[in-house]
Amino acid sequence: MKRRQFLSGAGVAAGAFAATAAAPAIVKAEETINWRMVMPWPKGTPGLGANGELFAQRVNKMSGGRLNITVYGAGELVPALECMDAVEQGVADLAHATPYYWFGKDPAVSFFTTIPFGLMGWELSGWLRFGGGQELWDELYAQFNAKPFLAGNTGLQAGGWFNKEINSVDDLQGLKVRYAGIGGEAMRRLGANPTLLPASDILPSLQSGAIDAAEWVGPWNDYAFGLASVAKYYYTPAFAEPGSGIEVFINKDKLAELPEDLREIVAVAAQANTDQTLADFAFNNVQSYQAILDKGTEIRHFNDDLILAFADASKAAVEEIANKNDLNGRIYASMMDFAKKAAPYGKEFEATALLQRAKVFAR
Amino acid sequence: MKRRQFLSGAGVAAGAFAATAAAPAIVKAEETINWRMVMPWPKGTPGLGANGELFAQRVNKMSGGRLNITVYGAGELVPALECMDAVEQGVADLAHATPYYWFGKDPAVSFFTTIPFGLMGWELSGWLRFGGGQELWDELYAQFNAKPFLAGNTGLQAGGWFNKEINSVDDLQGLKVRYAGIGGEAMRRLGANPTLLPASDILPSLQSGAIDAAEWVGPWNDYAFGLASVAKYYYTPAFAEPGSGIEVFINKDKLAELPEDLREIVAVAAQANTDQTLADFAFNNVQSYQAILDKGTEIRHFNDDLILAFADASKAAVEEIANKNDLNGRIYASMMDFAKKAAPYGKEFEATALLQRAKVFAR
Repeated sequence: MKRRQFLSGAGVAAGAFAATAAAPAIVKAEETINWRMVMPWPKGTPGLGANGELFAQRVNKMSGGRLNITVYGAGELVPALECMDAVEQGVADLAHATPYYWFGKDPAVSFFTTIPFGLMGWELSGWLRFGGGQELWDELYAQFNAKPFLAGNTGLQAGGWFNKEINSVDDLQGLKVRYAGIGGEAMRRLGANPTLLPASDILPSLQSGAIDAAEWVGPWNDYAFGLASVAKYYYTPAFAEPGSGIEVFINKDKLAELPEDLREIVAVAAQANTDQTLADFAFNNVQSYQAILDKGTEIRHFNDDLILAFADASKAAVEEIANKNDLNGRIYASMMDFAKKAAPYGKEFEATALLQRAKVFAR
Repeated sequence: MKRRQFLSGAGVAAGAFAATAAAPAIVKAEETINWRMVMPWPKGTPGLGANGELFAQRVNKMSGGRLNITVYGAGELVPALECMDAVEQGVADLAHATPYYWFGKDPAVSFFTTIPFGLMGWELSGWLRFGGGQELWDELYAQFNAKPFLAGNTGLQAGGWFNKEINSVDDLQGLKVRYAGIGGEAMRRLGANPTLLPASDILPSLQSGAIDAAEWVGPWNDYAFGLASVAKYYYTPAFAEPGSGIEVFINKDKLAELPEDLREIVAVAAQANTDQTLADFAFNNVQSYQAILDKGTEIRHFNDDLILAFADASKAAVEEIANKNDLNGRIYASMMDFAKKAAPYGKEFEATALLQRAKVFAR
């Protein structure tokens, strides 16, 4: 340890070059780079805002304080749905978010969050990192002067909370459902009446009967929201969100200014956050699912007729996105090429293992 | 960019303190720390050795060359199964490996790779990072003066290659199977004759009929090994290895000598490797599974009678490990507390989603 103590002392003597050195006391050749990171969710939001803050802390720590990221939750610097514009215009340097929030800029962003009957969390990582997905994502976000990194996954979500059973497409007619994204669009095409209530209105609207059903996230977030107290049936799983990707994206000019070590730190921190977030949801969904069962909630699955109807309606909506331009078409083709092989594999491997394990533990 | 160029030039002028600066040209207060990392697999091994090397490259890069890890594949510095001893004794500084290779030191290491009907890859991350698993792993490895980090997962493995169908425990009697770990022990307790052939002997032994069956890893590695050419039936999935953890472990004294930023770099690089490795197997298993089907291989599952027999035999073997001492018992209890809740959740969520998706894509 003596060598380090000596050098550390010498570093202080080096004056200006040590001016920004925080713990650990290592000489820094550069002043601190200060970045502003925006998020569409409040700081501290379990699984989401909390993991965005963790990403920033880790970058700060790995860089020895040289890259200092200050985190702004929803509305603190810009409104939630303006994070992409803020990064594009340099109002913020980077964001921790999820792609489908930028649907208004280009609906192809949806592919990088999730699409109905698409990739599971670990498969999304596989496609992005090994199947050409990242290069396509880079190309899409270059239009917004941003470089995207996968930085999390919520895992498989839930199909939502219902107060009446849904056994056919007939049961969807006129149903007032809070259903987001392409899932909501599929519901609409099948005759339901989807609305996008803000988070705070979901519980009272379901309780009062103003809506008949609502999907939110999965057991962890749904239970925390109190939804198990106001609905009888929990439909599992989501048809629309098999594994929603979380992202960090960075203004390309700002990223290019970083030295090589800090660029690597940012990229690796984002990837570590992918495991962290997937693990967070994996652990906490399991705990909350048990709590939901303990409340007397009845578990339901959509039957095969409904699944195939949701699939047809979703496919039509997704193909409209894919047909908009060449890049969108290439993204869709690449993802589907993997998904169509992942589907039979997932049935014979993961699904079979999970069913076998459930039999063992159910004895 | 001007400020950095100026400071970089000034850094060079700082003489001794810049002596170890590689690209990027930033003043370093410390000399390069050189670590030796051993692995039980050859360098370049797909999914395993290759990802160990990636971990080292990333640490080197993130640290701006301050922490330089030289990688040694199996046998290059120490024999494959002596990696733990090498790190304990300081012959190496760290290892990229999998815990159950150290079964001879304490069989409880098995819990941190995988146990039959245990946790899937994403669930193992969940239990380690949020369910108290890491603290128990730290306690176990402290006995070897090592600090463990999860640094990968092979995902769900396969049940193996068979040249006759297995429909009951009777069919296992005297069966010559290449089957590793607790899975092999369960096979033995049920009347089979498991052997642990070295990797290079598996293919010729199965081809010649010297053995009746063999498990190796999963579709990716199995197909590369040529096993699809010498066996008719592919049993999926593994009952014994639902999600095998890959680790990096570091000599505790060496880790304590690192400044805080380098400690964080090592920890975050290991976690990023978890996603990287799981993604690698997720993508490549799917590709190879299709290639295996194209070879005319017939897919089989162990039936429920066999699954429950494997479960009983495995449980007896695992409980012998758990009953050895207090720590082992606490590890088992903690993992089972999570697994028993994960089992019904995984059935109603992931398994159901995968079956629904398979129906959609099979049309």
